[in-house]
Amino acid sequence: MYFSSDNWAGAHPVISRRLHEAADGFASAYGTSDLDRKVADRFNEIFEREVEVFFVGTGTAANSLALASVAKAGGLTFCHHEAHIHTDECGAPGFFAHGSRLYPVAGSNARIDPAALAAAIARFPDGGVHFGQAAAVSITQATEFGTVYSLAEIDAVKEVARSRGLPLHMDGARFANALAALGATPAEMTWKRGVDILSFGGTKNGCWMAEALVFFDREHAREMPYLRKRSAQLFSKSRFIAAQFDAYLEDGLWLQLAAHANAMADRLREGLSRSTRSRNAWETSANEVFAVMPKVLMDEAFAAGARFYDWPVPADQPSLAGPDEVLVRLVTSYATSTAELDALLGIIG
Amino acid sequence: MYFSSDNWAGAHPVISRRLHEAADGFASAYGTSDLDRKVADRFNEIFEREVEVFFVGTGTAANSLALASVAKAGGLTFCHHEAHIHTDECGAPGFFAHGSRLYPVAGSNARIDPAALAAAIARFPDGGVHFGQAAAVSITQATEFGTVYSLAEIDAVKEVARSRGLPLHMDGARFANALAALGATPAEMTWKRGVDILSFGGTKNGCWMAEALVFFDREHAREMPYLRKRSAQLFSKSRFIAAQFDAYLEDGLWLQLAAHANAMADRLREGLSRSTRSRNAWETSANEVFAVMPKVLMDEAFAAGARFYDWPVPADQPSLAGPDEVLVRLVTSYATSTAELDALLGIIG
Amino acid sequence: MYFSSDNWAGAHPVISRRLHEAADGFASAYGTSDLDRKVADRFNEIFEREVEVFFVGTGTAANSLALASVAKAGGLTFCHHEAHIHTDECGAPGFFAHGSRLYPVAGSNARIDPAALAAAIARFPDGGVHFGQAAAVSITQATEFGTVYSLAEIDAVKEVARSRGLPLHMDGARFANALAALGATPAEMTWKRGVDILSFGGTKNGCWMAEALVFFDREHAREMPYLRKRSAQLFSKSRFIAAQFDAYLEDGLWLQLAAHANAMADRLREGLSRSTRSRNAWETSANEVFAVMPKVLMDEAFAAGARFYDWPVPADQPSLAGPDEVLVRLVTSYATSTAELDALLGIIG
Amino acid sequence: MYFSSDNWAGAHPVISRRLHEAADGFASAYGTSDLDRKVADRFNEIFEREVEVFFVGTGTAANSLALASVAKAGGLTFCHHEAHIHTDECGAPGFFAHGSRLYPVAGSNARIDPAALAAAIARFPDGGVHFGQAAAVSITQATEFGTVYSLAEIDAVKEVARSRGLPLHMDGARFANALAALGATPAEMTWKRGVDILSFGGTKNGCWMAEALVFFDREHAREMPYLRKRSAQLFSKSRFIAAQFDAYLEDGLWLQLAAHANAMADRLREGLSRSTRSRNAWETSANEVFAVMPKVLMDEAFAAGARFYDWPVPADQPSLAGPDEVLVRLVTSYATSTAELDALLGIIG
Repeated sequence: MYFSSDNWAGAHPVISRRLHEAADGFASAYGTSDLDRKVADRFNEIFEREVEVFFVGTGTAANSLALASVAKAGGLTFCHHEAHIHTDECGAPGFFAHGSRLYPVAGSNARIDPAALAAAIARFPDGGVHFGQAAAVSITQATEFGTVYSLAEIDAVKEVARSRGLPLHMDGARFANALAALGATPAEMTWKRGVDILSFGGTKNGCWMAEALVFFDREHAREMPYLRKRSAQLFSKSRFIAAQFDAYLEDGLWLQLAAHANAMADRLREGLSRSTRSRNAWETSANEVFAVMPKVLMDEAFAAGARFYDWPVPADQPSLAGPDEVLVRLVTSYATSTAELDALLGIIG
Repeated sequence: MYFSSDNWAGAHPVISRRLHEAADGFASAYGTSDLDRKVADRFNEIFEREVEVFFVGTGTAANSLALASVAKAGGLTFCHHEAHIHTDECGAPGFFAHGSRLYPVAGSNARIDPAALAAAIARFPDGGVHFGQAAAVSITQATEFGTVYSLAEIDAVKEVARSRGLPLHMDGARFANALAALGATPAEMTWKRGVDILSFGGTKNGCWMAEALVFFDREHAREMPYLRKRSAQLFSKSRFIAAQFDAYLEDGLWLQLAAHANAMADRLREGLSRSTRSRNAWETSANEVFAVMPKVLMDEAFAAGARFYDWPVPADQPSLAGPDEVLVRLVTSYATSTAELDALLGIIG
Repeated sequence: MYFSSDNWAGAHPVISRRLHEAADGFASAYGTSDLDRKVADRFNEIFEREVEVFFVGTGTAANSLALASVAKAGGLTFCHHEAHIHTDECGAPGFFAHGSRLYPVAGSNARIDPAALAAAIARFPDGGVHFGQAAAVSITQATEFGTVYSLAEIDAVKEVARSRGLPLHMDGARFANALAALGATPAEMTWKRGVDILSFGGTKNGCWMAEALVFFDREHAREMPYLRKRSAQLFSKSRFIAAQFDAYLEDGLWLQLAAHANAMADRLREGLSRSTRSRNAWETSANEVFAVMPKVLMDEAFAAGARFYDWPVPADQPSLAGPDEVLVRLVTSYATSTAELDALLGIIG
Repeated sequence: MYFSSDNWAGAHPVISRRLHEAADGFASAYGTSDLDRKVADRFNEIFEREVEVFFVGTGTAANSLALASVAKAGGLTFCHHEAHIHTDECGAPGFFAHGSRLYPVAGSNARIDPAALAAAIARFPDGGVHFGQAAAVSITQATEFGTVYSLAEIDAVKEVARSRGLPLHMDGARFANALAALGATPAEMTWKRGVDILSFGGTKNGCWMAEALVFFDREHAREMPYLRKRSAQLFSKSRFIAAQFDAYLEDGLWLQLAAHANAMADRLREGLSRSTRSRNAWETSANEVFAVMPKVLMDEAFAAGARFYDWPVPADQPSLAGPDEVLVRLVTSYATSTAELDALLGIIG
């Protein structure tokens, strides 16, 4: 009963097998192999247009390099205060972008509020040399709170960003889960909405290490070959990342895996909605579920072998959990089974 | 007939299979799994003492983080002018270590000359605030020129470094090949010689992506968890790097693979020594061989399907190649077969 | 009627004259002149102990280098959300300290609330590699809001910092004004309270360019000669900074100038307390006064030649100013005359 | 008898007096005062076109910010191996430009050899992601060896730079001395030759702290306001730098001071050419003279009160000094008197 994170899962057998099959033979290194090229083309198909793709090793790298590619001196990237780049990457974005800062913005359940974004950006007028300069806006889709921006909500954020000429980055560590939740196409959820740069995550959804940085504007990608190499993210045997993506993106496997994870989360959400001992903390729609339960129940669940993390109660929802209660995060993945889920619900439901 | 680089090879079947077997099931993330711990212990055994091990994704990362761990403001790392960190990493060491510089030192065939090192270090006396401060010495073992430092030669470099209190880093992208060439133990070639930090490479010798940073002095490793995370080198599914190392280090597989690569190189060296058309450019002993041949011969070899790189003639050996000749690098690996090698020799020998 | 900032003033005649007198003759460069040494000794006297002093060119440099000297990988410095380093230095601290971040903390009128500080630090437990590591605490004395930490309040912040072993930095851009306001000695307001590093400002109080970085712990200063040079803050004709400080610190001139500025602010505060058209926004005690007045009154004052800045209403005091009112900042300096002040009060009082 | 460096001199009385006169009154801060604007216009006049000028505090800052303004990821700036930025700035250029590197190029007496430059740049072809990318060329005028590039020599370097589209930076710490030596106009020696960015030094030639960064291409200057502020080089009382330049540039004072320094150096060169005990090490033409003399003579000179530095014998001129001889650098300045010079010649001549 592992619900700690989708990165506690392993690698999906189809992907793992493809990796194994790719182990044989020689191929030119550093992203120049035939397989690398084939997979790059696959990205063009998926996004229904030409894109620039760069494989990297971690989501931290994808996000940090994305922001580095549009960095300015004294620059600020506006993101939700719960954004992974803000809370969980040990300052990597600031390191990659030479001291550039993240400016936290409010909004319900990890989604940026466009009005709050506009107000935040307005604090950094052009020419305000003491304050620094607005450089980019970053959203996470699906968000860190299991919620998903609707297409209209992405549009609203985009409008604010565009009104100041700021590029829009999307942290898609759980991109497939968001797609599956919205029933949108990759194009609809990205460049058709005005997203300029995408961190395209495969690791949390069945790959073991496959992340990509996708640029919809070639201009933003110009320095990326050097930015990537300089930050030690150019893999000599890059074809093995390509092999994972090759299997991942073939015949819609990636969307099936995400749909499965989401379906498991749906079942969990439903179970919680019927539970007498636990409850959904807020409405979620991707593969992360947040629940409030008595502390003793969490202990019971752990004693029974369940694993998941408690979570800090958001500052803007202080009364979410009672004094003897705890907020927990439950993450499903491609590897979550119905049996496992029902076992969990048998305890906490 | 692929002799371009050992990173054109894939992954050894034993390692690849282990990776596939590790794909199933759940494990705690970010280097905390049982397998991660088991492999960390394996490093202790191999080095016959407690070490601090950090898995990273690329050799560039291992080297750059090694130098970052001992960086100083305005610091300089002394390395051979042919060192990979100096010529081939797009300035990554300077980026990771905040503008720290590499100071190139001379020496025959990519091995630092201790006297030249002493002279170089002497240019940076303590308190010389305009010049910057000596921070570290880095050697590559096996070197970029296919040569190997003898234990006594490492001692000699170490003595110079120690006389100024500088830590000694070893870039071991081809560590196993050097070990096999010397017939030394890992301990003998590292901490018993005074090496403080080791970039332990697995990728070039049969893994698909497995590099480790090994600290023999816990003090140097203190900031590394944060340095690694900040530079996007902490892998969530770290257990897959562990799985590769687990197979790699089991039953001496790593040394067998290196011994094979070296043996193939020996056969090549021998063939060249008997050749009427080509010749060994200098004496090598690991899995890289440098040969001088007529340009037309290189064309012939390519037409026959061989692949390898031509190489710039070292500035200190200008008469190495005649006007119609070319210097080439030929790299063998665990995957090089005798048949393939003999086919190459059939053309260039 | 210039109340825009104390850095709109020029240089005090005594200091300016000393600078002029120092223009003649030769002296060894880069901070090694006799005058440099003499002034360094003067700092020892003023602080009643041995200190390490480094002259730099700007307050931004002093603050950023202070934080760089205690930086950690992925490190965070805790400061008030209104701290100058957080709002007005274009991200310089992050640049100097390689992407280290500032973590904003709440507290009334620009003074850190110790409980809020403790809560903030607690979010970054040791070993929390994803979050980054607590590195330092920084306070501004006098604060950006014209308030001053009492000695007991500094103690309270210090206690929280010490409980996690964090060094305490004081941004003393208006150090003399704070001293004068408290009637404390330099020692009492710094190292006797646990301050480890001080940005000692002279520029706002009658010098034209004289800032110093003062270390009470030699260990923190170890890398500073190189950090300073590397960041282009080592002045060849450093003796001219020394000359300014020499005059500034002689016969208590610096404290007299600060006392004058504070007295002018007192007169302004008193005038506002009696005014029917304006009012003190909050209680201040150094040389910055914040007033609320009708917008039309600000226009009148400007028409009459007065100059000062309007100021954003603090988010935690939203009802401070009515719909037709404006919050303004009025700064006095050594150069403010009673006549000028009374002229201003004649308009806005 | 001070010949250690031109930065051992103080400030010229006209400049110092102007500074003193500017001390009174209020002026808007951070480079926005009337005087700042006036002096910016003066730069336009001097260079016979519109330029973008940024005052900074040190030559290190000017050079480092110049290179930062044209930095690329993994970028390299080509400079002479004796360039000040390469040997004497504690790695500041690498720090300001995020790990960018300097690539040393050979050439006689500190002047880049265009053929060597072309060969160096050729090592970094476009797309060579492992090597990094060529970013800029930097020359020093007058050079660190007292020599001066002729206009044709600047053209030759420019041609090589332009053939790869690289911007050309000139470190003009001794710009006026070079102008005076060549008898050229500022325009002729800079943008008419293809110089894109100039570090315009005033400090070594009679100011106490006045350096400027001059951009001939507005595009290169776009980020500079933020780059400057972020690196702590925006001075609040910037008008005092302006005041120095105001006096410095008025009625050709700056060129007179440089002409004086050069004339003193001419007298020294001539004395050495007639000397039986010392000799000119090589031909120089600005205000730095390099002499070879017996070690005992240097001791004699010091005993008589002279001050100057010995200098490492250039690696490419090993037989410059005999076993009992020493190479020394003698620097004249605006403050050098004929009496002082003749006294020196009386000893070493």
